[in-house]
Amino acid sequence: MLRIITQRAEAQAELRRICDRTHDDQVVHKEATVREVLQAVKRQGDRSLLHYTAEFDGQSLKPEDLRVSGSELDAAYQQVSKELLDAIGLAKQNIEAFHRQRVPKSWVQFGEDEVVLGKRYTPVDRAGLYVPGGRAAYPSTVLMNAIPARVAGVPRIVICTPPGPEKTVNPAVLVAAQEAGIQEIYRVGGAQAIAALAYGTETIPKVDVITGPGNIYVTLAKKQVFGTVGIDSLAGPSEVLIIADSQGNPAHIATDLLAQAEHDPLAAAILITTDAQIARKVVAQVEDQLIDHPRRTLTEKAIAHYGVVIVVDSLQIAAELSNEFAPEHLELEVSDPWDLLEYIRHAGAIFLGNSTPEAVGDYLAGPNHTLPTSGSARYASALGVETFMKHSSLIQYSPKALQKVAGAIDVLTKAEGLPSHGDSVRKRIKDGP
Amino acid sequence: MLRIITQRAEAQAELRRICDRTHDDQVVHKEATVREVLQAVKRQGDRSLLHYTAEFDGQSLKPEDLRVSGSELDAAYQQVSKELLDAIGLAKQNIEAFHRQRVPKSWVQFGEDEVVLGKRYTPVDRAGLYVPGGRAAYPSTVLMNAIPARVAGVPRIVICTPPGPEKTVNPAVLVAAQEAGIQEIYRVGGAQAIAALAYGTETIPKVDVITGPGNIYVTLAKKQVFGTVGIDSLAGPSEVLIIADSQGNPAHIATDLLAQAEHDPLAAAILITTDAQIARKVVAQVEDQLIDHPRRTLTEKAIAHYGVVIVVDSLQIAAELSNEFAPEHLELEVSDPWDLLEYIRHAGAIFLGNSTPEAVGDYLAGPNHTLPTSGSARYASALGVETFMKHSSLIQYSPKALQKVAGAIDVLTKAEGLPSHGDSVRKRIKDGP
Repeated sequence: MLRIITQRAEAQAELRRICDRTHDDQVVHKEATVREVLQAVKRQGDRSLLHYTAEFDGQSLKPEDLRVSGSELDAAYQQVSKELLDAIGLAKQNIEAFHRQRVPKSWVQFGEDEVVLGKRYTPVDRAGLYVPGGRAAYPSTVLMNAIPARVAGVPRIVICTPPGPEKTVNPAVLVAAQEAGIQEIYRVGGAQAIAALAYGTETIPKVDVITGPGNIYVTLAKKQVFGTVGIDSLAGPSEVLIIADSQGNPAHIATDLLAQAEHDPLAAAILITTDAQIARKVVAQVEDQLIDHPRRTLTEKAIAHYGVVIVVDSLQIAAELSNEFAPEHLELEVSDPWDLLEYIRHAGAIFLGNSTPEAVGDYLAGPNHTLPTSGSARYASALGVETFMKHSSLIQYSPKALQKVAGAIDVLTKAEGLPSHGDSVRKRIKDGP
Repeated sequence: MLRIITQRAEAQAELRRICDRTHDDQVVHKEATVREVLQAVKRQGDRSLLHYTAEFDGQSLKPEDLRVSGSELDAAYQQVSKELLDAIGLAKQNIEAFHRQRVPKSWVQFGEDEVVLGKRYTPVDRAGLYVPGGRAAYPSTVLMNAIPARVAGVPRIVICTPPGPEKTVNPAVLVAAQEAGIQEIYRVGGAQAIAALAYGTETIPKVDVITGPGNIYVTLAKKQVFGTVGIDSLAGPSEVLIIADSQGNPAHIATDLLAQAEHDPLAAAILITTDAQIARKVVAQVEDQLIDHPRRTLTEKAIAHYGVVIVVDSLQIAAELSNEFAPEHLELEVSDPWDLLEYIRHAGAIFLGNSTPEAVGDYLAGPNHTLPTSGSARYASALGVETFMKHSSLIQYSPKALQKVAGAIDVLTKAEGLPSHGDSVRKRIKDGP
């Protein structure tokens, strides 16, 4: 079922097809729906939220149901096991430690003639985290979004997540949120949640940055409100690319491919190997492991449409193909992963060696699991503390320093035809400080 | 003509109106036009570029005209004065020195049980810079976009700029580009240029990141291609907010307001002062300086629609109003600007003291002049070296380290219902390395 390709040109075409898998023609139609939802929430606030929650989530809420109550938050702790709470605690500790490394810090520098230049970093005032419901209701998503926002020092962080059956929110999500220090959680999902966070309603505050993954409607809504608020990225379906040499373990590689495919029928699972025997064994292992897979139908679909095994002559060629694809997750299951790393230019996260399955990074190694998809690792990076911060440039000149550059500014303002720009310097020189 | 407001609520309403000045209802209509242009260029490449250049810029080009030739590049040096070349050189030197500070650097950290974590920074492969033509044909824009890309180490940088009369490109723009190390310049503007950079044509390469300001069509095109490529920001019209106490010089403040207004009829010029006398004097000075202003009509329009003077009781209130507006440029023309700075949370660039007119930062102080507008300083920052770089997370676990977290991962994968995620760890523990 998993195809093996040995021709480079065919491999490149196949990788391009997989990379472009979400660029479908229905997007224009969905954009119109999303625009309508955004406009309605902007105009009618909570009333619209309740309307769309009934229509899209089948849950009939009153305005006072929108916010998850204190007693629900408390009750969630009774619904999760001690083991899960401990595991969330370990993940939180590692994620926090990693994100506390190299938090951007303000600086100033003193130059000649009392010139001061610098950058001043500050957190945003408010952040809104979107946490998907349904198939993708993951406490790990809460931690990976909430902790960087906390480390950045954002004073107010809120979560929106769609209500499930009986208006419930997954208790593991509620516990993860509280462990990350967030008590302000709203029961609303989809494009209407993004609208509420971007424009504000009677109940939900307008925020400055919206992060978190979601379905195509959530993603299109984030793209439309970008500019009114900041966003993390436009997340597409997940993907893994594994590069393996003859040292690779076919059973482990197969499991890693399936671990990606089991997320979503649109997930992509790619192996590039220098060893044709490994290629065949992995294909057989994938078949084997699919037989009793609890999420077989969905996983099989992803493997059939967006799974591929490519056999190449050298690890350099493997790296080149990987760079063209720019994968979200890249596993280097080779004997010298740090050597191979030198050839890698684009990837969201890189997992080095045979003892580093992607799951380690998905949950608790520390680095963020919110990563650029669909080739956007060519220009984008993991979500991080910077996502919730920004900086102001600082400039201070002295009268003497201003005098020294006055001539050059005069020439430049004349070349650009901006007289008052020139005057603003000339008048200060003439009048003195 | 410049209104003075003394009531806080009225001031807040006025600042909100000014901040929202570009959210007009014609955007939906323009979005459709832009989508059409993007689709046409994506399908028909150069042919479309020539078609739209004839239609929108009134210039009839052949495919071989698209790229600015070597002889044109050489000739540009004959058309600029020695003084301008020197001024460009000084600006380049300062901008480069500032941007070389704190370029993101890769790092790894070694933890217990041979765990390695880190971040690896790399430049994008290709960057495309948009340089507007017409009223806004500024060599400073070239330097402010090109230098950060060069400092980031981008191997291929190209410029698109619309052709003027007789297909010409402003020689100062051509010289600034070459001084910044760029020879690959294409004579195409508008949404069609953005499309060419996002999708590639026969002549113009597809890039990874597009930066640079433009008119509303360019901005809408950048928003639509965001996700296919990275972009710097969605630039709106320029704005300055000046906070002044009784130490401020009314003539200088007035010139700084006019220096903003002279950019664009949509530019905003705001003064907040604790001194009612300064307020009145600035209003009179603005009137005076407008009389002989070479760009009077345009400048007057901006002042009339988006100029305002606000009188407040304290500098703290001034800072609060400024934070709500989140200005692109903020001048602190007060006796203790570093004290006041502590109250400022959001601003693109901050100019401290009476000897630092914005023009210093616009041209040559060093920090970037491409700054967040229309309130986006709440969450966004100046263009910088980071705009042209991204990082990959690095994770390496050892067998022993994997074993220690296996239990926690098992619990988390079960809570999230992802069996192969659990298997990928379990199998490795069972089989050994």
